[in-house]
Amino acid sequence: MTTPEPTDGRLLRGARSRQAVLRQAVDLASLDGLTALSLGRLAADAGISKSGIQTLFGSKESLQLATAEFAAAAFGVAVVEPALAADPGAARLRALVERWIEYARAPLFAGGCFWAANLAEFDSRPGPVRDLLSGQQRAWRSLLAGELRQAVAAGEIAQLDADVAAFQLDAVLLSVNTALRLGDDTAIEMVRRTVESVLAPR
Amino acid sequence: MTTPEPTDGRLLRGARSRQAVLRQAVDLASLDGLTALSLGRLAADAGISKSGIQTLFGSKESLQLATAEFAAAAFGVAVVEPALAADPGAARLRALVERWIEYARAPLFAGGCFWAANLAEFDSRPGPVRDLLSGQQRAWRSLLAGELRQAVAAGEIAQLDADVAAFQLDAVLLSVNTALRLGDDTAIEMVRRTVESVLAPR
Repeated sequence: MTTPEPTDGRLLRGARSRQAVLRQAVDLASLDGLTALSLGRLAADAGISKSGIQTLFGSKESLQLATAEFAAAAFGVAVVEPALAADPGAARLRALVERWIEYARAPLFAGGCFWAANLAEFDSRPGPVRDLLSGQQRAWRSLLAGELRQAVAAGEIAQLDADVAAFQLDAVLLSVNTALRLGDDTAIEMVRRTVESVLAPR
Repeated sequence: MTTPEPTDGRLLRGARSRQAVLRQAVDLASLDGLTALSLGRLAADAGISKSGIQTLFGSKESLQLATAEFAAAAFGVAVVEPALAADPGAARLRALVERWIEYARAPLFAGGCFWAANLAEFDSRPGPVRDLLSGQQRAWRSLLAGELRQAVAAGEIAQLDADVAAFQLDAVLLSVNTALRLGDDTAIEMVRRTVESVLAPR
């Protein structure tokens, strides 16, 4: 998470309040979606005034964008960064998938995957929020595709279309998130078997 | 769609009003989710009184359940029934997938796939609506798995775990729905390639 460097106490308090509100907002948005975010409710939960929260975030759309950025940062810390310890290619891909399952199972956000909840909500609503969510999903798929290309180049797995395989992996992970919310743990085995079929040796 | 047989004019008008409201409700719920349904707004759109709509549907939860049943009936007519003309097994599976793509692309409901929108919304909300949506998704996956088993039994495709393959197909279709809403038509090619890899001859 990139936090600005505040230069005095007032800015520091502002940054802390912002982080506290965003942590709350990302949990709420994972449960009820970004459209359900209310400046008034978040202000009450964070113990600050509604005018205070407007000073921190401006409009509701700005709050939605900041919440999606916060979610991506938390996802990066919980899922992507730990997996970077694994070797590029098949090992890192398996690490990314296992961290993703843990992210959805634990879960990192109260309602499970932030993008599963919000892409479904915003996919028919053109605008900056949809563009940001869509770009974040593209970045995740590109990360998966890059590791798949690496695995092919290193001869670890059979030749494949990395973009199609990344699309399939992302799709199965999103369905696992839904299954976990519905109390169906058997879906985890389904995603592991999908990964192993994608990573079949050449 | 199963429509009860009304025995007099009043019942007939009631059934027609119910169908008109449900058609409206399923479009709204595909866009904004079942939680956003409002008895008052639906009454205004259908040109009937709010007390009239309460007589037709009772509670908001009853309306949500009736809307999900209506969606399943419309899905059955648009996607499942036409595909039953194809031979059981691989041919019928391809027909189901092609009808599904058309269902999401055309789309049948204003906001695209009804279950993509509402499973994401209800997966963290236990209750009768979630149970119904989840059961409808299971029925669809079972249909896919049954055709896959048939294709294996007939020797059309290589041995596979039909439940895992059905989970993968359903997952990819849901992601195609999101991609289409986001204006990305290339996802259709991804699902076709997934189908062909699942239906690889033995």
